[in-house]
Amino acid sequence: MPMITVDLFEGRTREQREAFAKGVTELAVRILKTTEGHTWILFRDHGKSHWAMGGKLCDQ
Amino acid sequence: MPMITVDLFEGRTREQREAFAKGVTELAVRILKTTEGHTWILFRDHGKSHWAMGGKLCDQ
Amino acid sequence: MPMITVDLFEGRTREQREAFAKGVTELAVRILKTTEGHTWILFRDHGKSHWAMGGKLCDQ
Amino acid sequence: MPMITVDLFEGRTREQREAFAKGVTELAVRILKTTEGHTWILFRDHGKSHWAMGGKLCDQ
Amino acid sequence: MPMITVDLFEGRTREQREAFAKGVTELAVRILKTTEGHTWILFRDHGKSHWAMGGKLCDQ
Amino acid sequence: MPMITVDLFEGRTREQREAFAKGVTELAVRILKTTEGHTWILFRDHGKSHWAMGGKLCDQ
Repeated sequence: MPMITVDLFEGRTREQREAFAKGVTELAVRILKTTEGHTWILFRDHGKSHWAMGGKLCDQ
Repeated sequence: MPMITVDLFEGRTREQREAFAKGVTELAVRILKTTEGHTWILFRDHGKSHWAMGGKLCDQ
Repeated sequence: MPMITVDLFEGRTREQREAFAKGVTELAVRILKTTEGHTWILFRDHGKSHWAMGGKLCDQ
Repeated sequence: MPMITVDLFEGRTREQREAFAKGVTELAVRILKTTEGHTWILFRDHGKSHWAMGGKLCDQ
Repeated sequence: MPMITVDLFEGRTREQREAFAKGVTELAVRILKTTEGHTWILFRDHGKSHWAMGGKLCDQ
Repeated sequence: MPMITVDLFEGRTREQREAFAKGVTELAVRILKTTEGHTWILFRDHGKSHWAMGGKLCDQ
């Protein structure tokens, strides 16, 4: 542990995921007292027409 | 809150997601006593060969 | 399908979950063209100190 | 119940998912004392650049 | 990978989870061609009043 | 977006969750180019007998 999932809009680049994963893992090790190897992060991209906030799809 | 995720077969249209999200948000506000803006809904499409029921993939 | 998960703050009653599940299932059948029996809904309660928005835990 | 989700790297074949689903369902019926029909399994494929372990994306 | 989550009714014992995890891991190694150490399984228990099928809560 | 879920072992304190949420939100804003208010983080605690790695429950 921990298992961290990040559901987000598609469009972020590999470099953004790389930097974010590096930073989050450092925080997990420092704050949650786990190890690097036991920190898993999964990014799941979604189109804006597959996400709704306030009762409306986010592509509107 | 709430965060609502809907895993379903691919093939539903944008209009179906739009109508479903609108209806679910109204229910959340009325019954769960939350606000529109705090109701997030995420649709995740899956092929029938990625879903199993009764021990068989659903494309059979 | 569909599999619907609802992550929300603890404190909602059984009656609220019952009414919400009934309404969401009706919407799923009517709009997503599935059957009652294939609509599964899972409610997961969470304390406000386990949810963060805007960088702050929601119990603040 | 149970609802079982399997997040994994893309690249597995339909035959692998089929055999895995069959085996997991048998285990669920035998060990968890559920029925075949109530065992749902969902496979979600992910590219290696969307998964991080040890602070690095898995395509490295 | 893989990350496997099992949402199920509360009431299963530690021994059941132990046997199920062992069996699923063997299947993952043999069929999905992963390693034991990279197979993570997470069990999440839920009361029957938190799960709905067919529009009704499962405690009915 | 993003919706970030953190499945982890129980035992972390409110202060740890608070610091982690603050740090992750800063990373999301800076790297993923989202806003503070649209960053949701959900922590889900699990006992070690509900998590398996390498085919064994983590309380062993």
